[in-house]
Amino acid sequence: MQQKDSWLLPDGIEEILPEEAKHLESLRRKILDTFACWGYELVIPPFIDYLDSLLTGSGHDLELQTFKLTDQITGEMLGVRADMTPQVARIDAHNLNAEWPTRLCYTGTILHTKGDPLEKTRSPMQIGAELYGHDGKESDVEVIRLMLEMLAMSGLQDVHLDLGHVGIYRALSRQAGLDDAQEAELFDVLQRKARPELQELMAGYSINDELKAMFLKLPQLNGGKETIAKARDILLAANGEVKEALANLEAIADKLTACFPALPISFDLAELRGYHYHTGVVFAAFVPSVGREIARGGRYDNIGAIFGRARPATGFSADLKVLSVLGKASYQNEQRALIFAPYLDDAALNEKIRDLRAEGLAVVQQLPGQTGTAQELGCTSVLEQDHQNWVVRPLASLE
Amino acid sequence: MQQKDSWLLPDGIEEILPEEAKHLESLRRKILDTFACWGYELVIPPFIDYLDSLLTGSGHDLELQTFKLTDQITGEMLGVRADMTPQVARIDAHNLNAEWPTRLCYTGTILHTKGDPLEKTRSPMQIGAELYGHDGKESDVEVIRLMLEMLAMSGLQDVHLDLGHVGIYRALSRQAGLDDAQEAELFDVLQRKARPELQELMAGYSINDELKAMFLKLPQLNGGKETIAKARDILLAANGEVKEALANLEAIADKLTACFPALPISFDLAELRGYHYHTGVVFAAFVPSVGREIARGGRYDNIGAIFGRARPATGFSADLKVLSVLGKASYQNEQRALIFAPYLDDAALNEKIRDLRAEGLAVVQQLPGQTGTAQELGCTSVLEQDHQNWVVRPLASLE
Repeated sequence: MQQKDSWLLPDGIEEILPEEAKHLESLRRKILDTFACWGYELVIPPFIDYLDSLLTGSGHDLELQTFKLTDQITGEMLGVRADMTPQVARIDAHNLNAEWPTRLCYTGTILHTKGDPLEKTRSPMQIGAELYGHDGKESDVEVIRLMLEMLAMSGLQDVHLDLGHVGIYRALSRQAGLDDAQEAELFDVLQRKARPELQELMAGYSINDELKAMFLKLPQLNGGKETIAKARDILLAANGEVKEALANLEAIADKLTACFPALPISFDLAELRGYHYHTGVVFAAFVPSVGREIARGGRYDNIGAIFGRARPATGFSADLKVLSVLGKASYQNEQRALIFAPYLDDAALNEKIRDLRAEGLAVVQQLPGQTGTAQELGCTSVLEQDHQNWVVRPLASLE
Repeated sequence: MQQKDSWLLPDGIEEILPEEAKHLESLRRKILDTFACWGYELVIPPFIDYLDSLLTGSGHDLELQTFKLTDQITGEMLGVRADMTPQVARIDAHNLNAEWPTRLCYTGTILHTKGDPLEKTRSPMQIGAELYGHDGKESDVEVIRLMLEMLAMSGLQDVHLDLGHVGIYRALSRQAGLDDAQEAELFDVLQRKARPELQELMAGYSINDELKAMFLKLPQLNGGKETIAKARDILLAANGEVKEALANLEAIADKLTACFPALPISFDLAELRGYHYHTGVVFAAFVPSVGREIARGGRYDNIGAIFGRARPATGFSADLKVLSVLGKASYQNEQRALIFAPYLDDAALNEKIRDLRAEGLAVVQQLPGQTGTAQELGCTSVLEQDHQNWVVRPLASLE
């Protein structure tokens, strides 16, 4: 039995073969270089961590998605990261501890025990950027711009942006005096967009009818630019915090429209799905061919509090594997030159091979007795002797 | 309690902060680019896998070092890779399945439950290259040359090479007619270089005295070039397989000396530690400042058999984190230019920032109300307005 199936991989776990790996590596470098050009410094958080650290500030969903391990040295519970954001927040809070804004970026594999019904993988390659230490709209705009830059660089077209604001829901809950259990219950129902349950829940809450009506109408607050005006109308009885959140959302949308006049933006004020630890503006990017968001992020102030330092924070992340596959078309013409060299005990040949490689050219050297022609090995040219010199000849001209 | 310790990391698990991460990423790219220049294509094996696949052909040591997980979807046993080599062999055997030599390279985090007493980390970042489908000494020489190239590129000096040949021990065991349990027992004792135990073991084996003497003298066969002649003498009564292995080892050493006349090479014919799945020549590289090898490899023919395809194979690997730390001195002068830009609603400024970033320069833009001067943010120059133009001024000239 093992003999037959030993090459199988677990569901949702992939290996990446040379052609795809080359695209992915090239895209990885382009994106990290862009992050660096915007002043975002790379950090490499550990793959496993104490379970408590990994789950800090995150919701129940992330806990279910986290693979647990026992540390054989100490007996303590470890987890495999299911999200790198809390780890990066810890680095900002504990290790770097700057008084001014800190910009960090990261990439690495994360694992999910079950995956998401909408995505098949259980091992995304998360790539993202985070900005700590600034609570104004300008930092939100900066990270959203950088996210759009990343998507453009990946070769994605017709990107659509969704904006929401978790602060509206959170401020309404506070205004209604909901306790933690009620807020969590309501968050879950809104997250699942379960309207009948929402009505049932509201019927049971002892809050005034004005607030009930606002909660019930929250799911209707989605659409184009007009959604903000509609929200001001529907949420008229809400407190100042809600109004501030709406003004914040509108200002961010206006700045983005000034930067990207052609970018389609829509609003969804009841969108909470996946925003476990967010506190302010939340955003997600979509492309027409994919049924779920391809990048997402938002503001998540104070996540670092548990690590000894509460700081404003905003950032985004995506799955590099998804970006690489979606943007593959833009890489099609990148086939790399590969030079085939014979195996000979010839000093001039070996020197020529060394020089070509030092110039960054790829040379594969024949091995004595091997099968496979230069073409079969995927070579585009060969090294041939021309009098005393070794020269590179394109393979096409040999045929 | 959690409040106090939430920033702690498990023993042997590290996070990499910006300065070190920049070195590491730069070195990672240089090494992978060099591998590509030698015709080695990148593959990305999965972080977790079925336990059976991970432990294929490997010894008991690797099993103890592998973190085990239960797949919550299927209930099957998964493991976190403790070595990427078997995964890459599977890709060669199953996915690529070429008839001619295949060259692959890889890098990624691996995890060890306990770590090695000599190294503190439990999460090395393995980087390596493998050559499949050729059983001659030329492929061994090629991978050793590539390993030395990788070390030179990492800025390491005074590299020393150790050569051994697992085939000598394996052929002697076959000649002595040892059964699998005896061979494993003897391998373990030799691996631990436990000479009293070796004598005890030999006393109990019913093999002829000539063979016993050879096994007992194996641990003495280490030193310089003269070791080969000494081995021919001591192993005179061994069969043809042992003699072939000695000739193979000598030929490889000669070729390497021709390529690197100044390279110190020593031999150790009883060195088996860590060579779980090797079958032929084994090698390790050392530098004077480090008490253990910094890169290692060898021939491991037929590891792919369990995946449906037995192929000759040879390759090496190292811990990229170790290479990065050891070679750090060579990076000291790499400080990157970082330009500070003010926050203004000025089209010319924003265009200038975009242009600088498009050229690959790093520009960090001020955020309204932030603390921290350009110097404190680590910037080396600032964008300033000079009449109608925005120009980059080095920070030193401002002081």
